[in-house]
Amino acid sequence: MNNPSTGVLSPAELEGALRKIGHERYHNRHPFHRLLHTGALTLGQVQAWALNRYCYQAAIPRKDAALISRVTDRSLRREWVHRILDHDGWGEKEGGIDRWLVLTDSLGLDRDYVVSQRGVLPATVFAVEAYVDFVARHSPVVAVASCLTELFAPDIHRERIAGMLENYPFISESVLVYFRRRLDQAPRDAEFALDYVKRNARTQSEQQGVLDALTFKCNVLWAQLDALYAAYVSPGTIPPGAFDPSELPCLR
Amino acid sequence: MNNPSTGVLSPAELEGALRKIGHERYHNRHPFHRLLHTGALTLGQVQAWALNRYCYQAAIPRKDAALISRVTDRSLRREWVHRILDHDGWGEKEGGIDRWLVLTDSLGLDRDYVVSQRGVLPATVFAVEAYVDFVARHSPVVAVASCLTELFAPDIHRERIAGMLENYPFISESVLVYFRRRLDQAPRDAEFALDYVKRNARTQSEQQGVLDALTFKCNVLWAQLDALYAAYVSPGTIPPGAFDPSELPCLR
Repeated sequence: MNNPSTGVLSPAELEGALRKIGHERYHNRHPFHRLLHTGALTLGQVQAWALNRYCYQAAIPRKDAALISRVTDRSLRREWVHRILDHDGWGEKEGGIDRWLVLTDSLGLDRDYVVSQRGVLPATVFAVEAYVDFVARHSPVVAVASCLTELFAPDIHRERIAGMLENYPFISESVLVYFRRRLDQAPRDAEFALDYVKRNARTQSEQQGVLDALTFKCNVLWAQLDALYAAYVSPGTIPPGAFDPSELPCLR
Repeated sequence: MNNPSTGVLSPAELEGALRKIGHERYHNRHPFHRLLHTGALTLGQVQAWALNRYCYQAAIPRKDAALISRVTDRSLRREWVHRILDHDGWGEKEGGIDRWLVLTDSLGLDRDYVVSQRGVLPATVFAVEAYVDFVARHSPVVAVASCLTELFAPDIHRERIAGMLENYPFISESVLVYFRRRLDQAPRDAEFALDYVKRNARTQSEQQGVLDALTFKCNVLWAQLDALYAAYVSPGTIPPGAFDPSELPCLR
């Protein structure tokens, strides 16, 4: 339990505090996600979501490499590098980014346009690059903690698979392969990261850094949905140059 | 050929300019290397070399991760990540760092002491961290160019294997496994990096950045031998706290 003389949390208390942050701040509570999962969005709005989320997906290997670049503990590097392989693909193996492009393909978005990220909302880019930068600048334990939104991902992925399949005629089981794979990967990754953080955040200052990192990361995800909501739902003010569903003949 | 109106070198000219830098500045020309290869060093001096060089080896995966963290071109990331796997090891596979520890083991150095890097010369640490930092702060093409000392490595490795086997009773074939493996890995890696640099350094400014990067990297290697020479050969002034062969009962 909390040591009153030092303010240091026990590992179980730290986990509880992390889970509380996720419960209050994870982006499954955002109005855009409710709309997405309940079938309330148009094709254009789902396209905008998938297109912007690609920007986040594409940055994840840079984020993981930035983390590794700060780590002198070789065993942590050896564990963490599999995230880069999982997401970028490796040798003949496809990665998570390929699986995300299966989704954008199926939504009728041109692959070159998606990969170019030309139509991404500026606020998405800012949030994503803030995440890469955060990981590059903080200590390994704090950087690892910023990945702990994975603790809350499987529920949202299950909800998303069921909701999108049920509610959108343009979504089929095969295009949701990204989320199905993450149902296996995310719990393993999250369990390792949570264990690492509980073992290595031992001082009050480190524990506060870890809690702040998860709050920061929740903000990174939340801000992306705020931007989507403002541009494509209400007030629906699409920034200059950003993807406009009404302009592009993008459905194949 | 050099375009006089722009000052831009052809790819072949750029390669020539890079090879000229290596010819003039690669650390095979350093007096310490001559001593190492010709059998002129004591066991203690060879220990000091292997111990300090471990510091460099241990930092290489961080350097490569720093490079990947800057790369938005996924195909470059997918190629480069194998360097991290080669050097850190991956799954059940040992890496280059393990093979370096075979050498330090065989020289009678305590493995925990080597890995702790407690006895490393400060100048070694400064040079090595300057390299990691350089790669983290420069564009991918410049960062890639800083690895091009690999072009000149196979010759030095061959010379080292032959010279050390012939001249030191405490060096056997089996402990030089690191260098044998690098005879295969370095040419492949260097060829990829050289080709990447020749294709991607297209402006005068990029080409100058690439040439400066190789000069910088030669300095990183040279400075490490300068520090070894000053501490352990002449004048032989070992800095406080650094490895002292006369103090440690380190030969098993």
